[in-house]
Amino acid sequence: MADKINNKKNKKLVTAITSMEEDFSQWYTDIVKQAELIDYSSVKGCMILRPYGYAIWENIQSQLDKLFKQTGHENVYMPMFIPESLLQKEKDHVEGFAPEVAWVTYGGEEKLSERLCVRPTSETLFCEHFRHVVESYRDLPKLYNQWCSVVRWEKTTRPFLRSTEFLWQEGHTIHETEKEALDETKKMLEIYADFYEKYLLIPVIKGQKTDKEKFAGAKATFTVEAMMHDGKALQGGTSHYFGDGFSRAFDVKFTDRNNKLAYPYQTSWGVSTRIIGAIIMTHGDNEGLVLPPSIAPIQLVIVPVAQHKEGVLDKARELKFRLSQKYRVKLDESDSSAGWKFAEYEMKGVPLRLEIGPKDILNNQCVIVRRDNRQKYFVNLDELEKQINQILEEYSKAIWQKALDNLKNKTFVAKDLKQIEKLNSENTGFIKAMWCGEEKCEQELKDKFGITSRCEPFDQEIFTDKCVCCGKPANRVLIFGKAY
Amino acid sequence: MADKINNKKNKKLVTAITSMEEDFSQWYTDIVKQAELIDYSSVKGCMILRPYGYAIWENIQSQLDKLFKQTGHENVYMPMFIPESLLQKEKDHVEGFAPEVAWVTYGGEEKLSERLCVRPTSETLFCEHFRHVVESYRDLPKLYNQWCSVVRWEKTTRPFLRSTEFLWQEGHTIHETEKEALDETKKMLEIYADFYEKYLLIPVIKGQKTDKEKFAGAKATFTVEAMMHDGKALQGGTSHYFGDGFSRAFDVKFTDRNNKLAYPYQTSWGVSTRIIGAIIMTHGDNEGLVLPPSIAPIQLVIVPVAQHKEGVLDKARELKFRLSQKYRVKLDESDSSAGWKFAEYEMKGVPLRLEIGPKDILNNQCVIVRRDNRQKYFVNLDELEKQINQILEEYSKAIWQKALDNLKNKTFVAKDLKQIEKLNSENTGFIKAMWCGEEKCEQELKDKFGITSRCEPFDQEIFTDKCVCCGKPANRVLIFGKAY
Repeated sequence: MADKINNKKNKKLVTAITSMEEDFSQWYTDIVKQAELIDYSSVKGCMILRPYGYAIWENIQSQLDKLFKQTGHENVYMPMFIPESLLQKEKDHVEGFAPEVAWVTYGGEEKLSERLCVRPTSETLFCEHFRHVVESYRDLPKLYNQWCSVVRWEKTTRPFLRSTEFLWQEGHTIHETEKEALDETKKMLEIYADFYEKYLLIPVIKGQKTDKEKFAGAKATFTVEAMMHDGKALQGGTSHYFGDGFSRAFDVKFTDRNNKLAYPYQTSWGVSTRIIGAIIMTHGDNEGLVLPPSIAPIQLVIVPVAQHKEGVLDKARELKFRLSQKYRVKLDESDSSAGWKFAEYEMKGVPLRLEIGPKDILNNQCVIVRRDNRQKYFVNLDELEKQINQILEEYSKAIWQKALDNLKNKTFVAKDLKQIEKLNSENTGFIKAMWCGEEKCEQELKDKFGITSRCEPFDQEIFTDKCVCCGKPANRVLIFGKAY
Repeated sequence: MADKINNKKNKKLVTAITSMEEDFSQWYTDIVKQAELIDYSSVKGCMILRPYGYAIWENIQSQLDKLFKQTGHENVYMPMFIPESLLQKEKDHVEGFAPEVAWVTYGGEEKLSERLCVRPTSETLFCEHFRHVVESYRDLPKLYNQWCSVVRWEKTTRPFLRSTEFLWQEGHTIHETEKEALDETKKMLEIYADFYEKYLLIPVIKGQKTDKEKFAGAKATFTVEAMMHDGKALQGGTSHYFGDGFSRAFDVKFTDRNNKLAYPYQTSWGVSTRIIGAIIMTHGDNEGLVLPPSIAPIQLVIVPVAQHKEGVLDKARELKFRLSQKYRVKLDESDSSAGWKFAEYEMKGVPLRLEIGPKDILNNQCVIVRRDNRQKYFVNLDELEKQINQILEEYSKAIWQKALDNLKNKTFVAKDLKQIEKLNSENTGFIKAMWCGEEKCEQELKDKFGITSRCEPFDQEIFTDKCVCCGKPANRVLIFGKAY
């Protein structure tokens, strides 16, 4: 223990990250490490969410939770284990999930008589519970949600985008009528879309998955699809309509208003820590993260300039106290250089930086710098909050617009396979194409070009009447893309 | 589906519960079901937290989380799996936990090369992470906490008290010095004690566990012990000091202020959904739950009287809107009878019930009824909030005092084995006894009387100098009891 070690300066250094133009994938990996969002663990495909990464998730969670509760949903907690026999009750569901679950076979020294899977999703558990608590139409609807982690045994993993274990929420609801359940499915999709667009400032396309791409066991799956900076698609959240398929499989019945036994209708919907991946790849740049104010753990960082000079730290602390009433504020009093601090909080995507030094104090002002474009504002301290609100608004508009431009600029239209081939060789983006409805054509595009159907968008702009693949009659638009 | 079914009234009924004097254990089981806190699942020993039960946990969680953050702690999230080799690094720790963990042996169709246990607690994972992020004294302390579920393969289980899977928080901190780590251990114990006493209105005894009872791998374990209504003990929360044992086992080192490599000092601390069991068995009565206002999902329920009469529902809604600014309020507009509603919310432990009917409206008043003793207050609507605050205060004082009296009345002193034998045959409660420090004596009391040492209380009142068991010199007081 008494070894002398090199007298290296024991201070973190902000290392430059790979530029996104050079290698987008490496840029992403560099950011998640350098911004201290995650650490890798010795468990294959499982990540550690560090305080800064987890704080982003906490902000996402608390705001979504409010939206869920405002619309009448209640939180519950189900077991993390599902007995194999329970998982197998719904045929499509088990086919979809069994190949990718983790199996518990021993409890202590004892071999289990039936193996348990670690939940990949909890439809089966909710169905079992609904069977206990739903008797009459008076007990309906039940609008439940659960915050938890789930496990899917993935071959290749990437932080936030695809990991063996991940955090998410899963809503599960059960209704008297088909219409009510369908309305719920669409309502939750709207909540997700609003959350992406108004809170995260990420434009999304709302639509329905094809049968090939829908959730295992669902009658219909609705989705919000976002476009990342590199033109690839990220499925942002899904909402599933089950009809009475799960009710029948799990024998959930209720006495309806005519005093007859009937099967209720179900939905489920979920978003996960993938959201953080979407934020990184939508707003981030070569200096690091760029965070939407709504979920930024620090909305404004105060960096004192010449902080050793009399009065500077006092003033900085006074501002920190004052601004903490309205914003999530950090004051960095450490002895690192101002330049080092600038780089650190740029890497972490803090929307605004407030600099205050001796001269500013004399002039009753401070400097505010925007993260997205480093624009500087000299702000009179008397109208600080008013100015901050305005700058935050400009900042939010600018990062939203940038994301929207990216989506528009990289969305293309193709009428036949040749056009797809050309587009696909020149760009990565969304391709709008007419589709006949045959899975064969969908598959062909995947096999030939590595693109999958993202959704049939709600917003249908029919532009020919021929399928992009087979040329047969087609009356709907699909959006295709390469997906994360 | 067209089966006619019995024309039974499809309405929940509040069934009477077993009285606690008749069968305390059945009373407990009845409450957790009737108050709709939990449902059983088909997974052995795992419970489902229903909306009302989970809402209590959410309130506990949000208030503890605030206390943790105020004292500088940050939340993180670790994987739920621990590779067997990682679990085995600290000898005492693995001995304590290996016999009771669930083992994952398959991922999809593939047998894993190394089995993974589902975390029973996460010291090993935190150590691995600390090794990655702690290099210098400048990186210390790290004050981390995690909200998650853990799994321990229990033979016999009871809702909240002992279940295979349960929700909890586990704090894990790492420090430069022994003193800092010990201070942290004690600080967190104080936070737990305060939370029990000031928020949950449950008196606790603070003390240190004996070596026999301490946590697997800890140098010292501190505990808060509460007494349930039946005189049995419930370990309410524990805080562990690890010294540098885990650091050495996991090779976590840092460069200290003298530029030498040193092992840091660690702590961990946790409370779980057991808290809900403690609340039930401390405050509950034969009508059901009695909840402390701080964590009650509904603090006040409004029950309209003769609600079909003109103006009653309007007034009730107006009060609901007004009181929701300050309290968690529910208005029950359902067509159940007022009497049924009274029983329902008494079962659920809602602290105050507000009744409002046509006559009350004429008199500009309402009736407020306390859950604990059904005391009635006629309250002028002009001073409603003021009166509610005062009644809630009286209510809180009363349930605290009742719990405190129970603790005092069932705490006994014993000087020798005969006295213990007599006490133990006549009562269930805490027995204070002098102890020589030998594990043999502790074991003898357990074998003979089924009582275990709860703790060596901080508050030591030495009353003889002889060990209660062997009669040899003894200079410390232990508290013994039967434990949940």
